Amino acid sequence: MQEFGKIAFLGMGLINSSLARDLKKKKLCKELVATSRSKKTRNIVRRLKLVDAVYDTYENTVRGADLIVIGIPVDAYEGVFKKINKHLKSGAIITDVGSVKKEVIKKIQKIIPKSAIFIPGHPIAGTENSGPEAGLHGLFKNAWCILTPSKQTNSAAVELVKKLWLSVGMKVDIMDPVYHDKILAITSHIPHLVAYSIVGTVSNLEKSIKKEVIKYAASGFRDFTRIAASDPIMWRDILLLNSKSVLQMLKIFKKDLSTIESAIKKKDGKFLYSLFSKTRKIRKDIIS
Amino acid sequence: MQEFGKIAFLGMGLINSSLARDLKKKKLCKELVATSRSKKTRNIVRRLKLVDAVYDTYENTVRGADLIVIGIPVDAYEGVFKKINKHLKSGAIITDVGSVKKEVIKKIQKIIPKSAIFIPGHPIAGTENSGPEAGLHGLFKNAWCILTPSKQTNSAAVELVKKLWLSVGMKVDIMDPVYHDKILAITSHIPHLVAYSIVGTVSNLEKSIKKEVIKYAASGFRDFTRIAASDPIMWRDILLLNSKSVLQMLKIFKKDLSTIESAIKKKDGKFLYSLFSKTRKIRKDIIS
Repeated sequence: MQEFGKIAFLGMGLINSSLARDLKKKKLCKELVATSRSKKTRNIVRRLKLVDAVYDTYENTVRGADLIVIGIPVDAYEGVFKKINKHLKSGAIITDVGSVKKEVIKKIQKIIPKSAIFIPGHPIAGTENSGPEAGLHGLFKNAWCILTPSKQTNSAAVELVKKLWLSVGMKVDIMDPVYHDKILAITSHIPHLVAYSIVGTVSNLEKSIKKEVIKYAASGFRDFTRIAASDPIMWRDILLLNSKSVLQMLKIFKKDLSTIESAIKKKDGKFLYSLFSKTRKIRKDIIS
Repeated sequence: MQEFGKIAFLGMGLINSSLARDLKKKKLCKELVATSRSKKTRNIVRRLKLVDAVYDTYENTVRGADLIVIGIPVDAYEGVFKKINKHLKSGAIITDVGSVKKEVIKKIQKIIPKSAIFIPGHPIAGTENSGPEAGLHGLFKNAWCILTPSKQTNSAAVELVKKLWLSVGMKVDIMDPVYHDKILAITSHIPHLVAYSIVGTVSNLEKSIKKEVIKYAASGFRDFTRIAASDPIMWRDILLLNSKSVLQMLKIFKKDLSTIESAIKKKDGKFLYSLFSKTRKIRKDIIS
């Protein structure tokens, strides 16, 4: 049942290391190999025995790989492709796991060799933790993975990447990359931005009150701190790469926030009650 | 060990019904009685056997009670006190569980009879659910309860209410009510307002995209919907009663949000990285 041949992971953060754990357990690949930029991470991956071999260089990692899963900050893509381009197997399928698609596709299209096939992907799963030790068995179960291949892409390659995510329990949808970025701006990028902002506000408060806020952190702020503990490099890149959709949604959100502010100033309880009842309904739709 | 004599619950929402569950299990009271404004709720409380007796009127509920725990929307306080004032046992201790203290104290001071002692309280615990069926055993364990009595308050009465919350596993602090309201604006009221706002923004989107947002709801938005599913009446009252602190903090938050917006527009990755690293530290302080 080794459907995936040799898989190479570039980067072993939360997503790639979770995927490696699931694939290894299910024995779906002939060989799993990985690398990471940092020696420390490579040693952790070795110690945890997450893959069959850990290489020190990107070149050695991709050699002979049928499928390559990129899980590194987008800013590093260009440098990595310069290194691996000549070492890719002809017909190698490359996918990634990033939360922004349009800008990533633009970048990759410029640097990928013609013999390789790129299937942009985004498994919508994760926790606020990062690194290979944060990976989990079963992280992807019942969650959605969105693939955003262009219409010209080899459909067998799309099917293979689809099968990869299905094999670890995900549901898979195909979507236009621009639409993906718009949806994700709302479901993920703006909430992260807002959580970072509010926790940042607290971090700027004077020391004594900051201490009390941390001591009495309740539901609400506590949840925000969890979100705002996500990987800073990854989120810097996401917000900058998806800036168009993020800024568009942020504008609407700021307007709505000002409407609530006015309602509080005017003591307009009727407006607040009506809004707070509507939002409760959305929760019901999500958990149902 | 029946240290608390007869305890009467006015309102049987999440907090009071959780407290009733814990107290009944620990057998710390001679008698537990309760009422609720709605017949439906009273019948649920009867069916769940949360207390020894459920009465249809506030008057019958408070009769002979040594300790009364108010868990009703603040707007209803005045009407309820008009009903119970003449039926209170002399020396009865009254406490409440609301998330706003200064304005509540102002209201209660005007209507409470001289023979009763009011100890304002705020057990910082809860979930997004409400009603007697949402109550939980052990909800208060290891969480903070803040009491905000005035300096003139009978200290034995303060000790008794303190003991009540300690007996269900809480840690108890005494605090000035204005300071309490300021801290809670940051740790709880603003995060709720922001979550309500962002989920409200989604609820106003056109139907097709709203459907996709609900379908792909990820960490971030999903957490916000949980917060924004909280009781709408309770949160309307909290934001209106604590409007001063809430508006003050909202102003700072909006300013900080605009700073992030500018950083994204200017592609200032350094600023974003530095902010997102600071917020991660706050999370560490909270969970450590």
